[in-house]
Amino acid sequence: MKKWIPIAAGLAAGFAAATIAFGNFGTNKTTQAVTSNTKSDAEKVYVPYGQKDEYYLFASGGHSGQLFVYGVPSMREIRTIPVFSPDPATGYGFDTETKKMLGGYTWGDLHHPAISETNGNYNGKYLFATDVGNSRAAVVDLKTFTTKDIIKVPNTSGPHCAAFVTQNTEYLFLPTRFAVPLGQEYQPLDQYSTKYRGVMSAVTFDEKKEKLNIAYQVALPPWNYDLSDAGKKESGDWAVITSYNTEEATTTLEINASQADRDYIVLFNWKELAQMVKDGKYEDVNGQKMIFPEKQKGGIYLVPVAKSPHGVDVSPDGKYFIASGKLAPLMTVFSFEKAFKAIENKDFAGERNGIPILKYKSVMEREVNPENALGPLHTQFDDKGFAYTTMFISSEVVKWNYKTGEVVDRVPVQYAPGHSAAAEGDTASPQGHYLVSLNKMAKDNFLSVGPSHPETMQLIDISGSKMHILDTVPVNPEPHYAQMIKADKIHTINVYPKDPSNPFAVYKQSDTKIVRNGNEVHVYGTAVRSRFTFDHTQKRPDEIDVNQGDHVFIHLTNIDFDEDITHGFAINGYNLNMEVQPGQTNTIDFIADKAGTYPIYCTNFCSALHQEMTGYLLVKPNN
Amino acid sequence: MKKWIPIAAGLAAGFAAATIAFGNFGTNKTTQAVTSNTKSDAEKVYVPYGQKDEYYLFASGGHSGQLFVYGVPSMREIRTIPVFSPDPATGYGFDTETKKMLGGYTWGDLHHPAISETNGNYNGKYLFATDVGNSRAAVVDLKTFTTKDIIKVPNTSGPHCAAFVTQNTEYLFLPTRFAVPLGQEYQPLDQYSTKYRGVMSAVTFDEKKEKLNIAYQVALPPWNYDLSDAGKKESGDWAVITSYNTEEATTTLEINASQADRDYIVLFNWKELAQMVKDGKYEDVNGQKMIFPEKQKGGIYLVPVAKSPHGVDVSPDGKYFIASGKLAPLMTVFSFEKAFKAIENKDFAGERNGIPILKYKSVMEREVNPENALGPLHTQFDDKGFAYTTMFISSEVVKWNYKTGEVVDRVPVQYAPGHSAAAEGDTASPQGHYLVSLNKMAKDNFLSVGPSHPETMQLIDISGSKMHILDTVPVNPEPHYAQMIKADKIHTINVYPKDPSNPFAVYKQSDTKIVRNGNEVHVYGTAVRSRFTFDHTQKRPDEIDVNQGDHVFIHLTNIDFDEDITHGFAINGYNLNMEVQPGQTNTIDFIADKAGTYPIYCTNFCSALHQEMTGYLLVKPNN
Repeated sequence: MKKWIPIAAGLAAGFAAATIAFGNFGTNKTTQAVTSNTKSDAEKVYVPYGQKDEYYLFASGGHSGQLFVYGVPSMREIRTIPVFSPDPATGYGFDTETKKMLGGYTWGDLHHPAISETNGNYNGKYLFATDVGNSRAAVVDLKTFTTKDIIKVPNTSGPHCAAFVTQNTEYLFLPTRFAVPLGQEYQPLDQYSTKYRGVMSAVTFDEKKEKLNIAYQVALPPWNYDLSDAGKKESGDWAVITSYNTEEATTTLEINASQADRDYIVLFNWKELAQMVKDGKYEDVNGQKMIFPEKQKGGIYLVPVAKSPHGVDVSPDGKYFIASGKLAPLMTVFSFEKAFKAIENKDFAGERNGIPILKYKSVMEREVNPENALGPLHTQFDDKGFAYTTMFISSEVVKWNYKTGEVVDRVPVQYAPGHSAAAEGDTASPQGHYLVSLNKMAKDNFLSVGPSHPETMQLIDISGSKMHILDTVPVNPEPHYAQMIKADKIHTINVYPKDPSNPFAVYKQSDTKIVRNGNEVHVYGTAVRSRFTFDHTQKRPDEIDVNQGDHVFIHLTNIDFDEDITHGFAINGYNLNMEVQPGQTNTIDFIADKAGTYPIYCTNFCSALHQEMTGYLLVKPNN
Repeated sequence: MKKWIPIAAGLAAGFAAATIAFGNFGTNKTTQAVTSNTKSDAEKVYVPYGQKDEYYLFASGGHSGQLFVYGVPSMREIRTIPVFSPDPATGYGFDTETKKMLGGYTWGDLHHPAISETNGNYNGKYLFATDVGNSRAAVVDLKTFTTKDIIKVPNTSGPHCAAFVTQNTEYLFLPTRFAVPLGQEYQPLDQYSTKYRGVMSAVTFDEKKEKLNIAYQVALPPWNYDLSDAGKKESGDWAVITSYNTEEATTTLEINASQADRDYIVLFNWKELAQMVKDGKYEDVNGQKMIFPEKQKGGIYLVPVAKSPHGVDVSPDGKYFIASGKLAPLMTVFSFEKAFKAIENKDFAGERNGIPILKYKSVMEREVNPENALGPLHTQFDDKGFAYTTMFISSEVVKWNYKTGEVVDRVPVQYAPGHSAAAEGDTASPQGHYLVSLNKMAKDNFLSVGPSHPETMQLIDISGSKMHILDTVPVNPEPHYAQMIKADKIHTINVYPKDPSNPFAVYKQSDTKIVRNGNEVHVYGTAVRSRFTFDHTQKRPDEIDVNQGDHVFIHLTNIDFDEDITHGFAINGYNLNMEVQPGQTNTIDFIADKAGTYPIYCTNFCSALHQEMTGYLLVKPNN
């Protein structure tokens, strides 16, 4: 095994990192200019009118809290799906249901989307994601591209390493980036090693109810966990998580978490853990079933890995897991088979925090160290047995054979790639074709928009023996991971079907009504090109009269059962807006605390008479 | 003058509108397929790595409340600028200053951006916009692409017809879409004609202070105003506003505001109005100087126009204003010179609501009625004397000579265009080159993202004698108007300069400190790749200790004076995030009401050791 080269020391020294990271921009540019063929690239990414993209790319929106949907190869954003933050444009977080779902949070940090899987392959039904900012998990329905459920995950702080699903979506795993005292209670940092813990949550999804649920949790050592991946095929019952700061440093991690030559991969068998829970081998912690590995032994092991790894990825065949120590310039291929054998033989090198450590040499299959390739982070796969690893510091993607270790190609990207996403490149059946490099820096790639720069995505053709960059596009902040799925796997609806069981739905203008009950006013209205009807019996069917202080509920059904006919509902001056999609019933409620005259209008341009789609809310003063 | 054809009646009948509006999708597709040349189109819109777009396109984000910045011809969104709604991604509305600027509003409806002008041409310095949802106006600094000031505009409800600036940015005019009682007080709708008013606000901008101010307001009749435009050159002291619902209908406007054959353009001389204010010819209404045209005569006139016009646009030479009655299938060219003569001669056809009416025949220069072109809305101009008008219902752009009335070309668009934006196409010096059609419907243009569809923008090459569609791209909801400006007119900064006068700025780690003052805690900290320093004298410089209930102010300075090195600042579980751009000092404040242990982390990926850029907030419990 090689000794880590001076880069590690240089990085730990702080400012030196910047110079290394960004010293080679000029060089990259030249290389890029030579290798790209402008004419054919333009044609390869252009999707003419009447045709559609081949793939969807679902990119995490990072600290926007949302999910970005792109078409590939056009690399155009088709839609932002609001998940963890309110979205004024669609009324997400404003209507009664989604407001409740957001639970008062106005911000989230969405990392790492995970499409639901069958037999290790995307099935295109749901997408899961976690919120590092406020420790939540969410599920998005890919029939409607809307968020269906959000749960707050107790005992955890920053489920950054998620979500990744097991091969038949039995679980999504949510290990944390930050260690905190269980329940996030107050504990001085001097108590860090004894009182702080990382926590891995195993979450299940009930497809029928479209609800998430926490099955159990595992109290891990107080380290920072950074990306997990579930096994496949022969490793299907297992999952792996990387860690850093196994130094258990409590300040200035830039230096103090970069001291040890090794951190650990946590290798666990989720079927064994589930059995332990079944057998009562857990403790109740704030209502959660918590396994403490130092007390309830079995099912969890540590694998030493090159320092401060940023990710670990399981190969499509399920035989290997590949980790990259971001401060060590190499990718390490580990063998599941070797690990299983070592576990069977109890071939351990002692314990750390009560968890058995497998011997590096017993599990390691191969180390791959491309010359001058610095800052390896994450690995994706193609259909021909090649792996693609992003190099954050040397700003490139390295293509290599994970069964032989041979490095076959390298391409510079602009600049500082974090993750990449190949076509179904983290599944059991990668498609090859395309890889998107998610670059953290744009520098001067695009027209300047001031001090705050966009991120960059680069589309790379990986169908040939040489990688070739097709296009470079700007992105709003901030995609981390993304998944690319064949377009024909997604089956959307365009119009919500009638739901006769919905007590708030009104499908005929002649059924509209305004019902008063004490100080609650319920409006059962319709929206149709191009009028609102709130109560058809009124002189003015588009007028709502309430008293100051009333609690007003607007139940609005869009009775345009026609593709792409969205209506909005806003009250001028009342800071309220929601949308109703074709066939949909939606509710918004508010306290009419301001007396006066407030125009109501449709916010989503719906027809030639959209401007005329208005009404009035009249709030009669109390005094 | 032609009699309006049956379309008007058909539209008024409600559901028929849908059929007319969307009946011809199939036809459009076929036409489009025949005329487009895929190969050259791809090359024309492709901006290869190392090159940049030729134009910025600033598109209103509609009910997102934000502004979208695109590059042309790539049609890629480079940045969303938050204006009227909070933006979790950039911390806009979360940090102390922007939170105050938003004034508690969580939503806005941004229509019609207006770039500041010198001699009728964009000067690239500022951009103005209004909020139809909550009646506000804002200014964006194009050096930093950030919002600098927002004002609430009293007495107004929905300044939809704004902003448009006069030729040297003396004023921006904000006429309202909705009529309400002045001050938005409670008044039954039966009092509509006597108690409700539209209001036009004249707003000035102090460039030195970067502050907006309301100079005066005009109480207009209770009609709906829909888009204004300022004069140029010989008409430079004048401005025009379209209106609809001069019927003064109070319900089901779809039908009732479509009765009269004519509505009015309001023509006003803003210098005369300013003089009236100077002469004290106004009344104080809720602190605003309000001109009542029925009492203080002069300076305002009405011009009859084809029914329910959606827009009015002044020609680049300042000689004409062109209005399109959206329910009348024609564009009408009016002559400023003729209007001035009629005013001079008092050639009036009586008054309406106390305002003199000019005779249609005295002011009308020409009617242009392209065969079967339905739903004309808005007009842009090129450098060769041609006008381009969007047809909402027949889904096309019509190119015509506004001096002769000759229709020279028509191109179908997909589908239902509202506005369009030509290169500097509403200025005194249009550039020709490109026109972007802002289409309201996408239907099946793109991969489906469920019931809620994106809008569409189409880039049209207008440099030749025939218009040619180059590209069709999806857009998040919902651009209305846009302006396209030559890239070299925008001069941004990349790094905020040091500001020694800023009491919250700290430029050296050795100057960081935490100051306690009663229950206020002020943190003067720095962010630099890759560490936070809150108080360099502490054992842990990246720890913040407070007591439960403290009011905590984090003043954070990004001391990476380096392009594209943004740092974020989030507190896990505390629903807080902000960004600091290179060189910038930003403050976030909150009440530490939850006791416990909360990790702090950098949200914007900044270096190879970004993950290590963390700290802790420890909130000691009260009891």
